[in-house]
Amino acid sequence: MGKILQSAGVLLLLPAVVSWLYHETLTGIYAGVGGGLLVVGTLLSWRLPKNKGILIKEGLFIVGLSWFLLSVFGALPLVLSGEIPRFADAFFEIVSGFTTTGATVLPDIDSLSHASLFWRSFTHWVGGMGILVFTVAFIPLVSGRTMHILKAEMPGPIVDKLASKTKVAAQILYLLYAALSVLQMVLLVIGGMPFFDSLLNTFATAGTGGFTMNNAGIIGYHSAYIEGVLTVFMILFGVNFSLLYLVAIGRGRTVLKNEEFRWYLGIIAVAVVMITASIMKLYGSLGTAFRYAVFQVASIITTTGFVTADYDQWPMFSQTILLLLMFIGASAGSTGGGIKVSRIVMVAKSGVKEIKRMLHPHGVITVDFEGVPVKAKTLNNIHSYLFLYALVFCGALLVLSLENLDFHTAFSAVATTINNVGPGFNQVGPMKNFGGLTDLSKYTLSFTMLAGRLEIFPVLLLFSKYFWQE
Amino acid sequence: MGKILQSAGVLLLLPAVVSWLYHETLTGIYAGVGGGLLVVGTLLSWRLPKNKGILIKEGLFIVGLSWFLLSVFGALPLVLSGEIPRFADAFFEIVSGFTTTGATVLPDIDSLSHASLFWRSFTHWVGGMGILVFTVAFIPLVSGRTMHILKAEMPGPIVDKLASKTKVAAQILYLLYAALSVLQMVLLVIGGMPFFDSLLNTFATAGTGGFTMNNAGIIGYHSAYIEGVLTVFMILFGVNFSLLYLVAIGRGRTVLKNEEFRWYLGIIAVAVVMITASIMKLYGSLGTAFRYAVFQVASIITTTGFVTADYDQWPMFSQTILLLLMFIGASAGSTGGGIKVSRIVMVAKSGVKEIKRMLHPHGVITVDFEGVPVKAKTLNNIHSYLFLYALVFCGALLVLSLENLDFHTAFSAVATTINNVGPGFNQVGPMKNFGGLTDLSKYTLSFTMLAGRLEIFPVLLLFSKYFWQE
Repeated sequence: MGKILQSAGVLLLLPAVVSWLYHETLTGIYAGVGGGLLVVGTLLSWRLPKNKGILIKEGLFIVGLSWFLLSVFGALPLVLSGEIPRFADAFFEIVSGFTTTGATVLPDIDSLSHASLFWRSFTHWVGGMGILVFTVAFIPLVSGRTMHILKAEMPGPIVDKLASKTKVAAQILYLLYAALSVLQMVLLVIGGMPFFDSLLNTFATAGTGGFTMNNAGIIGYHSAYIEGVLTVFMILFGVNFSLLYLVAIGRGRTVLKNEEFRWYLGIIAVAVVMITASIMKLYGSLGTAFRYAVFQVASIITTTGFVTADYDQWPMFSQTILLLLMFIGASAGSTGGGIKVSRIVMVAKSGVKEIKRMLHPHGVITVDFEGVPVKAKTLNNIHSYLFLYALVFCGALLVLSLENLDFHTAFSAVATTINNVGPGFNQVGPMKNFGGLTDLSKYTLSFTMLAGRLEIFPVLLLFSKYFWQE
Repeated sequence: MGKILQSAGVLLLLPAVVSWLYHETLTGIYAGVGGGLLVVGTLLSWRLPKNKGILIKEGLFIVGLSWFLLSVFGALPLVLSGEIPRFADAFFEIVSGFTTTGATVLPDIDSLSHASLFWRSFTHWVGGMGILVFTVAFIPLVSGRTMHILKAEMPGPIVDKLASKTKVAAQILYLLYAALSVLQMVLLVIGGMPFFDSLLNTFATAGTGGFTMNNAGIIGYHSAYIEGVLTVFMILFGVNFSLLYLVAIGRGRTVLKNEEFRWYLGIIAVAVVMITASIMKLYGSLGTAFRYAVFQVASIITTTGFVTADYDQWPMFSQTILLLLMFIGASAGSTGGGIKVSRIVMVAKSGVKEIKRMLHPHGVITVDFEGVPVKAKTLNNIHSYLFLYALVFCGALLVLSLENLDFHTAFSAVATTINNVGPGFNQVGPMKNFGGLTDLSKYTLSFTMLAGRLEIFPVLLLFSKYFWQE
């Protein structure tokens, strides 16, 4: 925990630098909070424990607690600077940042300082890959026996080889992440986007977050080129990083055989075709309809949440497709949220196979994924995840219903936060924000964002009797 | 199939009798369709096959097909009489009847003849216990080797002993069902409800259907006694009939230990308390609030769908609870619909246990239900059911979204039909009907009603490649 607070302290020094560069007044606040965390973190990790092994339980606990603390301390500068004076708002905003949701409570983003704009978007970049992955990769003296922690922070049902080799793997992941980010930034700058905008929009894309840095958002750039670059990179950052790594080392051909990747692209293609057909009448031309459809589909399925059209005005058919895409989400091992394509495919295959099993009750029927049989243990874990996911969903929906929101608003608010997307529908739609909700709702949705980002288990564990009994 | 058409023919003679008793003009139509089915059924079953065994596949096929045919022929008299002139409407209405949903397309129920009112409500009574169970119980020459058919028609994850002894069991079930129905009818007549009303409302209660026999519905009786009787019997008919059988043979004490029964009552109690608290302000007194809450909770969780209050005007908190109750549904082995309490409890236990399994990856952890470990096969089947259920749900939601309904209407229309409840929210709310939907939506919801009533598998089987391959 000490090491993680140290990392957080280091990260908070960056907006302090931004503030100083832009001659803003927040240098002291960001440097103060960052420095404070550095001191506390250093004190906490002064005496390393002799036994460096970490139990699964401890690992999950560290993940849950550190994401919570990070959000609290990350919100502090926004409150102290007076830019987001109420803690419930600042906490929601920073949780939304770290969990790469991108839902905002701010009605006027333009009024924020450069430092806070930077910090807000930077949390996307850090949260996308994971603060613990960051800590393991870059903080010295954190040893390799930290697999359990990484596991809990990595999205997806199966932790693959890349993720399990810890320190080196974490460094490779961040290197790849940084390289792709730099590439995107350069392409945005070439397209005429100012440097600071490019940086922040890249943070938001890479983390599949979706915070924009001004009120106009992506629409404000009026550039098909920029939308194109964003679309491609949103889709890229929704791909399993292990696959991107394979491409990077020149083994791109195997990627095309990857089952999750093919489903991911297939779902995107089908959704784009259906939405294009549905909104063509609205926009009058196939080209325009396709441009909006492909951007929005990429933005929603990767759970980024950028917006180039007020899809609240689209036909319900398109809206329903977007809502379903929120639940599907991106690929496992990407920075995207949602249930993940691989989980959905495995559950679907297992569900369809059961029909076969009913017809041949004594046959042995296995489900294959990526060419190998899916273990019963993996399926159990996914089913359990889905149940707990549904439980958190229904619980949050009940709490939100207390403030008498209409159903579309309440349902989509929970859906967009638990899946870490950003915008919802109606009162929390693409042209609105979450600022009007009660504090109770804001804290509830902060909880669903964290539960969604950490894939439920580390968060619910703290409420489990099994955890506290022993 | 011939035997089943014979049963249907016999059943259609009853409204012919009603028409004759009330000096209405529909005697010929009902007798004609009924007689026709009798003739066709007799011809089809003229030569009994030598091999009377039925494969699982054939059993599921028979169930799917006969429910479809029954709905088509059941709708015919309504079309021929001109009372529901359009086939899409009549089909929806009769599917809604047989599946015990109780959703109606009729804006003016008062204008129906006694014969058609009777037939409409009588389909609830037949559909509640199952037309195949009826056929096995009462049609001679249908042998006992028909377990697979019964299995597919019985709601719930585990078919218990009572249901597997076929002919005798089917007769016991119907006897119990009839006895309880007579008891309810007598109690309603004692309360001052006219005989014909009592009969039809009992059909609707026993089958957990929910059709009312006039526009005013249950509200029109203005009687706390009648609401009380209905509440008690709705809850009773939502209990596993095996338990009611145990009570009937004097072993009622064991019933109290039944886990599903306890959860069922527990969920009802919690929901009643929460809704009472939520609507108390609206009605000004604890007593009135409780009266409406307990009736509506019983009506929705048992998937009956009777209404004594316009719950569309209730606070969203109450509405959301009712919506969640629709999904939970009644007990397995009852006439009620929904996912069923036992399925939810087993999935929940298995989901929560997975947290324990994460903490102790090498321990052997089992899930107990009703005092015995749940088989992996049963859990697989439930998970598969839930996936296919979600698939049908999302598919239907997409089709309904084509007609640009608001989300609350579309979502609740699918929820209330797939769970065989009846009323939804907003445009398909308790004071509205399904008549305004397009034919496409009506056929889609007819499909979800059938899929819900037959618990997905027999219906989806017809679309499965495994079925047609062999």
